Amino acid sequence: MKAFCFDVFGTVVDWRSGVARDAAIFFERNGLTGLDPLEFADAWRSRYQPAMQACRAGDRPYVRLDVLHRENLEYVLAQMRVDIKAIQESDLAWLNMAWHRLDPWPDVVAGLTRLKAKYIIAPASNGNIALMVGIAKRAGIPWDAILGAEVTQAYKPAPQAYLRLAEVLGLEPAQVCMAAAHNNDLAGAHECGLATAFIPRPTEHGPGQTMDLAPAGDWNIVASDFNDLASRAGC
Amino acid sequence: MKAFCFDVFGTVVDWRSGVARDAAIFFERNGLTGLDPLEFADAWRSRYQPAMQACRAGDRPYVRLDVLHRENLEYVLAQMRVDIKAIQESDLAWLNMAWHRLDPWPDVVAGLTRLKAKYIIAPASNGNIALMVGIAKRAGIPWDAILGAEVTQAYKPAPQAYLRLAEVLGLEPAQVCMAAAHNNDLAGAHECGLATAFIPRPTEHGPGQTMDLAPAGDWNIVASDFNDLASRAGC
Repeated sequence: MKAFCFDVFGTVVDWRSGVARDAAIFFERNGLTGLDPLEFADAWRSRYQPAMQACRAGDRPYVRLDVLHRENLEYVLAQMRVDIKAIQESDLAWLNMAWHRLDPWPDVVAGLTRLKAKYIIAPASNGNIALMVGIAKRAGIPWDAILGAEVTQAYKPAPQAYLRLAEVLGLEPAQVCMAAAHNNDLAGAHECGLATAFIPRPTEHGPGQTMDLAPAGDWNIVASDFNDLASRAGC
Repeated sequence: MKAFCFDVFGTVVDWRSGVARDAAIFFERNGLTGLDPLEFADAWRSRYQPAMQACRAGDRPYVRLDVLHRENLEYVLAQMRVDIKAIQESDLAWLNMAWHRLDPWPDVVAGLTRLKAKYIIAPASNGNIALMVGIAKRAGIPWDAILGAEVTQAYKPAPQAYLRLAEVLGLEPAQVCMAAAHNNDLAGAHECGLATAFIPRPTEHGPGQTMDLAPAGDWNIVASDFNDLASRAGC
């Protein structure tokens, strides 16, 4: 194993709390009452997979996630009967950038810093490069490179999203370990011959989470958090 | 200005000394006498621009530099009347990786570390991602992202190599500063609306260098080295 590539939303960063935090500020600033920031975060995130599906299916060329997030934001606000035309463009743009301001889980920076001493570490996210750089610079995440959808031009779990990852690193698929809190992501990587590491994030979707609480496949590594992952990888 | 993007071969790393160092080992190991490692480095590098030109002109799709380097290596060895078939494949592969083992100039890591505190820093090289990661991990270069030809799918000085750089960073061209020791690279960036910084590397081509000893355009910044660049950029 030469490289660890990481899913980001849910695995590296806590998107739900982060989006809700900025949504609360946005609602307050715009006098929008009666809206629940956590429900809003869930609703916005629920549009994520269907939006990428159009690109995966070939109905639409690759479009950066920043753009899909903006489309989804307008859709969700409209569903919540918010009059988008009454909101300043700069404020909508600010809320869309909430995804650039997400905080990592507490174990992430320490665990990645240990892993980096021995392995190449990079995000393999459906998020675009600017989005990944924004998160990393704010949080001090020491990536060696920013990989993912904008480099591979494919959204996970499309096979090209994993195969091109190994290709651009100049490695065999088995030399790359995909690390994620999501079993379906690891299943996609495993089918392409990559190694796999599962790190559960049992509160990604809030206290009532039922999905991805345990490994659902024969993954190479199961770790309790990123520090445990570094230990199991010999760092 | 939000980001500094760097030319790498010549500007960040001393390719001539590094290639010559590994070539000397390779010649010795294979009993190749009478070959000058520095001349060999110059000959290998001289095939660099013509090899990329086929891709720029559209005669060939984008091909990673690791592949072009390997083609050029075989060409140059054959020109030097070396019998390539007598050499082990693993040894040829090792020499081709000399580009991954190049040392940065002495001011690079300190200057980039200062710049990183205030700006996004990334290579904008014609080198591929694995090549840039290899150099950076060995030398401890703290890039925020690995950009360049494999991300933009264009070789400098093609305009798309600069325009897509700003695009993937989510920035306007004027918010990105191209930093290089080569006036023609800066001219390409300037034509695309990027800011420009010239850092001379007067011994890139050895003691008799005549090119790029001074700025040949009205560049935004002229700095004596990367520490001076950091100071001039307010870091």
